[in-house]
Parts: sequence; structure tokens; C-alpha cells
Amino acid sequence: MGKALAVSPLAPASFPNLPEIGGVEIATVAAGVKYKDRNDVMMARLTPGTAMAGVFTRSATRSAPVLDCQEKIGGAFDQGAAILVNSGNSNAFTGGRGVESVQAITAAVAKAADVPVERVFTSSTGVIGEPLPHDRIIAKLDELSANLAPGQIEQAARAIMTTDTFPKGAGATIDVNGQTVRIAGIAKGSGMIAPDMATMLVYIFTDAAIAQPALQAMVSRLTDKTFNCITVDSDTSTSDTLLCAATGASGVAVDDVPAFEDALHAVMLDLAHQVVRDGEGATKFVEVTVTGAASDDDARTHALSIANSPLVKTAIAGEDPNWGRIVMAIGKSGAAADRDRLSIRFGDILVAENGWVSPGYSEEAGATYMKNPELTIAVDLGLSDGTATVWTCDLTHGYISINADYRS
Amino acid sequence: MGKALAVSPLAPASFPNLPEIGGVEIATVAAGVKYKDRNDVMMARLTPGTAMAGVFTRSATRSAPVLDCQEKIGGAFDQGAAILVNSGNSNAFTGGRGVESVQAITAAVAKAADVPVERVFTSSTGVIGEPLPHDRIIAKLDELSANLAPGQIEQAARAIMTTDTFPKGAGATIDVNGQTVRIAGIAKGSGMIAPDMATMLVYIFTDAAIAQPALQAMVSRLTDKTFNCITVDSDTSTSDTLLCAATGASGVAVDDVPAFEDALHAVMLDLAHQVVRDGEGATKFVEVTVTGAASDDDARTHALSIANSPLVKTAIAGEDPNWGRIVMAIGKSGAAADRDRLSIRFGDILVAENGWVSPGYSEEAGATYMKNPELTIAVDLGLSDGTATVWTCDLTHGYISINADYRS
Repeated sequence: MGKALAVSPLAPASFPNLPEIGGVEIATVAAGVKYKDRNDVMMARLTPGTAMAGVFTRSATRSAPVLDCQEKIGGAFDQGAAILVNSGNSNAFTGGRGVESVQAITAAVAKAADVPVERVFTSSTGVIGEPLPHDRIIAKLDELSANLAPGQIEQAARAIMTTDTFPKGAGATIDVNGQTVRIAGIAKGSGMIAPDMATMLVYIFTDAAIAQPALQAMVSRLTDKTFNCITVDSDTSTSDTLLCAATGASGVAVDDVPAFEDALHAVMLDLAHQVVRDGEGATKFVEVTVTGAASDDDARTHALSIANSPLVKTAIAGEDPNWGRIVMAIGKSGAAADRDRLSIRFGDILVAENGWVSPGYSEEAGATYMKNPELTIAVDLGLSDGTATVWTCDLTHGYISINADYRS
Repeated sequence: MGKALAVSPLAPASFPNLPEIGGVEIATVAAGVKYKDRNDVMMARLTPGTAMAGVFTRSATRSAPVLDCQEKIGGAFDQGAAILVNSGNSNAFTGGRGVESVQAITAAVAKAADVPVERVFTSSTGVIGEPLPHDRIIAKLDELSANLAPGQIEQAARAIMTTDTFPKGAGATIDVNGQTVRIAGIAKGSGMIAPDMATMLVYIFTDAAIAQPALQAMVSRLTDKTFNCITVDSDTSTSDTLLCAATGASGVAVDDVPAFEDALHAVMLDLAHQVVRDGEGATKFVEVTVTGAASDDDARTHALSIANSPLVKTAIAGEDPNWGRIVMAIGKSGAAADRDRLSIRFGDILVAENGWVSPGYSEEAGATYMKNPELTIAVDLGLSDGTATVWTCDLTHGYISINADYRS
């Protein structure tokens, strides 16, 4: 840690105005888990009846808090719930002591927030392999409980940051048959977490009324189109967690309301894009779209192969319209492709087709396009109708500096 | 291209003394395909009766020369053969014109070297998407043929270099029942090939007598243990080619001689390691060994996940004993792992076990170990007896500079 990182050039101008969500109270505090002089713990208390859905890292070495959340998610939720998140220590790969920390925190939160321990969800993000000083967190729970209040979501977004260079929030307000439903979400992303890997944490609140299984299905479905379509460096954290709490305070049932799913999709996509925009060392935000693949799965495989390729990502960093590296990434992906049927576009510029560079393409036009901070790479495989879109950033000296140099 | 790269700090002290292989004649020439003032084409002529085996990139966008070689490999070989390789242009993604170039070159080589066109194998490495100026190569074929001579393998190793920082050779001489069998091989590796991806080319010659199917099986088997176990940046070239020519000049049949396979294995491993040692920007040579996996395939998946992880590779570049990133890479690989049963060693230093840092581990010992230019990372998963070893290098500012900055 130590020196603060400059705010990403791809950051939004400011934190958005997010709607207040009925049934959600939030508080933050400085517990000194690792960081000094900043809030590093957030608590959210959710009203009885809240439906809670979650999506978690698929890592085989996931952290103690993730395992605890996974056990609890999906039960009946006719009582209140609480979320407690700390930054500065991930409580990952901490053996039996990590489990004890989760038990101690969840028991204390249950008491302080007056909810069953089975309804207390925790996340930890930061250094791994070091024991979590959970006493510091527990010592602050009474203060947190006393300060619980509506709003305060921007403070929560800031408290969960590690080396994120900006707080991430997104929201929506929609009309359902004349009634208002609100969504507000926060995320932390792929700022480097000294001395460890990037972790993505996402918390979304809505006052919609929805059955837990329907919410879970919706969140899982949307995660596949949002957070599972972004990549910074292909590495996967042991702590990635997304929790979505639907309090029902609006009284509007949304189980079968497409407009609600659309709005939730937009919020999740906005947060996912912000995570990429804060990718370590990122100077370019890149959308990779693949069409004409043999299947959607194949399209996704190609798109991720392009988005994860170090050679593609360094070319983008160098503002180099190096379409040959895209051909390479398609070729190596393992999904079906026909060299002579694929076409490549940078933005609106047709770069390659019919197995060769396009006759109308000029390197100058390509090079000019690559100077944009936001880029679109579109590949059509000419095989069938499979499509996918993923988002990534470039691979720069900044990434190396953040990840190789910070111990010095 | 332009500025020459400094020789890798991991390079061998000098090019090895390689045995002359009976039945092999080599010549090199400066054809000016792209580079100035250096040899950029090599030709090898192989005596009648030579068995030729090959392994090629699995890329779906492989180059015209690769496709031509794949069609030809494996036939009966009672006549002579020739190999022609140019550097500076890969003739990849060059559409129908690329096929015409291959046809023109192979026809001209067949005539100049007096071998059937079905026995002419070509490789091209360098810029992709630009038409290969094959007339420049063809204009030099008479000179090449006139200069064909035994030896000259170091010159061949130099002629096929692109941005490799040193020529790569390895050889072996073994005794089979009182008779001598010789092997000599060259490779070019993962120096960046402006403006494109790294390509690996390997040519191995032996005077052993062996049936083509047996040679092919042996080369394929050994490739899985050597060249398929190295990774610089997880990207795969459209042009990767390995050709192995057994001339039979020794008169020693080796179809069932384990010592020959062992020697060929050692030559291929040596060349594979040299490719890693010349990885773009490499400052560390890293062996990753995984034991105790559920299967050999699982062990390999874990080992490659570690070896390809940008966060692991940047930590190594920073001489940071960041074992948490190794836990992360194991967790994300998709293969079976149990967080609480795995152990991690840096060299002889036990770093982590029982789901946590080892009680006897000190960060100071880890940090001192990481200063070595050659590192071993060993993971035991504690599940079963699956094993794998792969080799990689670190990810440095040099990699970014080579791949992002060269157009400027």
C-alpha cells in the first residue's frame, strides 16, 4: 500500500445520486483493520422480509466469509438481515482461525443489529494469509448499530475500497404500473489489494418485493451478462461476492416484471463497467463484441480470448491497431473459427476480411481510432449466429508497477 | 523493429557445440525479406530415406506454410526432402496470396534442391498480414543450393531469429550398442515479432534410423512434455512449427531404443527452456511443479494456471514471495483443490500448509529466495498422485515495452 494511486482516467466525473432504498439502513466506521484515518467497515441492516440473493467466486480456495455466505444464502427470509464488510484484510487462506473470525463477527453482528446469526452476511477484502483482527471490528459494532440510518450509500462505497481509485455506485428508479421501485448498488473492484489479488465485491439494494428464488435466478442470470463478462487480467479472486437484497418496502411485486430485470441489468452492467474502468493501470476501456459464432458459448470463448490476451492488451496500451494479434487470439481460443470467413472492425472501421487485411483499410485510420480512450473491437466469424460481448482494459506499465513494485 | 534488444540475462553463455548430422546439408543467405544486413533464410536438404515428423500450432487461424506442412507430413519418405525457413514475414493471414507464395517457394525449392515438391517444408516467421515477397527468396535459391554443406547449424539458428536475443541450439550424442547416434536441434522463440505475436519454430536433425510413424509418435509424446509445458504469456502463434528429420545416416535403428527417446527428450527440453529464457522481458526462469493432484491433467491445469497468472508473474518480477497469489491461481484453475490440504514451497522453503502460512515460514527467507534468477515453485495438493511440471518467466516492464511501445 502506501502511496495513493492516481484516479483512473476512465473514472466517471462523480459518484451518482442514488435513490434511498426503503428498508435499508447503513453505517460506516473506522475500525483500523489495516488502513489508518479512513472508514474501513460498513454495516447494512435490512428490514424483516428482505429476500437476499448471492453470487460468489468459483475459486476452489475461496475465503472463510465466502463459504459462510454460501451456506446461508437462499433460506427463508422472514426476519431481518445484516451485511458487514471490512476492507484491509480478506480473511482468506487463514485456516481454522479464519473460520473463528467469521463466527465471532457474525455472532456479534447478530446481537448488535438484532437479527438472527443465520442472516448475517460478511465479506472481507484486502491482504490474505494474515489473521483478521476481528476484535477491532467487534469493538465498533455498537457504534455502527447506533449510527444506522437510511442513505449513506456513498460512504459505504468508500469504506469497502482497497486500492480502488474511485468509489463505484449505480442506481435506477422505475415505474411499475404507477408505483415506484428503486435500485441502488455499490461495488469495489480491481484496484490492487496489497499484498494480494484484486477482489470484486458488489452490494445491491432494492425496495422491490420478490420471492427469494426468483431474485436468485434473476441475479444469477444477469451476472452472466455483466460481472462474468468483464476481465482485467484473467485472475480470479478468492473473495468475489455479490449480494442483492430486496426489502419489499415499495410493496411492488416484480417477480414477473421485465422492466425491473432490465433496470437491475443496467445497474449491474454500470457497476461492472466501473470495475473495468478502475482496472489496475487501465488507460483504455475496451468493448469486445463477437458475432457470427457457431454458438453463444463459442462467441464468449473468442471474446474472452481476445480480452485476456496480453499481446492484444499491450497493443491497445500502445495505441497500436495490431489486428494480427486479434487473429491470433481467435485462433488460439479453441472455439470454432474459419480464418478466411472472419472479419474484424475497430469501431466502424473494417480492418480485415476474407482472410486478409481489408482493401479499404489504412493503418493511419486504425492508428487514429486507437487513440480514443473507449474502444470497440468487433469480430464477425461468419459461421452462424452466436454472439457475446465482454469488457476489458489495456495492459500497461501501470499494471506492472502496481503489481510488481509495491513491496519496495 | 528497429532498436536491438539486450541479450536476455537468462541466456546460456554461448551457442553449444553441436554434432554434425550425416545426411543433412544446410545453407543460409541474406534475402532481404524484411531485415537488412543479416541472413534471413535457411535451407536444409535431407538425404533420401529421411523420416520427417512434425508438430504444429493448434491455432484455428494458422498460416499458409503451416497448413502446407501439415498436408505433407507423414507420407512415405524414400526420397530426399528440404526445409526452407524465412524470418521477417510470417505469411499468416495473407489470404489466397499467401497460398500462392507457398506454392511458388515450394516449387522453386523442389527444383533447386532436387527433391519432390511433396517433400518441401517451409516456415515463415515475422510480420503477419503483409504479402510475403517470395521473389526475393526464390532469387536466392540457386545460391543456397550451391552453398549447401554439412554443419552450419549455428548459422541456421541465427537466420531464423526475429527478435530473439540469442540463437538457440541443443544436441546429444549417444551410444547404442557400440554405435553412435547424433541429434542436433535449433529453435527460435518468443522474442517479439514486430508487429505481431511470438512464434516458436524448432528444427531437429538426427542420423538415427527410424520409421516415420514411430518418429512421429515419439515427437508428439515428447512435445507434450517439453514445448507444450512452457508458456511466456499464454498467447499462441499462428505459425508454431516443430519438424524433426531422421536421416538414418548412422545406420542405427532406434525405433525401440529408450536411450534415444531420452536423448531426444533432453534436446527438446533444453530448447524449450531456452525459449522461456528468451521470453519477452524475462528476468526470471521459473519451474512450476505440481504434485498430489487428482490426476496428471489436473496437475497440469494447476501448473499452467500458476505459470500464466499475470499476478503471479508480476510478483516474481518484483521478487515478492507472494504465495497468496499462488493460492489464488490454484483456486481459479478449475481443477480439483482443497484449500486446507495444499502446501506451497519456494525452492526448499515450506511457505504454506494446512490452509495457512507455515508456522516456520519467514517473509525474509521468502524474499531472499526470490532474488535468485532461477526459481522453483512447488505445490502439493495432497489429493492423489497426479503430477506436472511447466516452465515460465516473469512479467516485467520489459514485456510491456516490447509489446506496447515498439510502434512509436
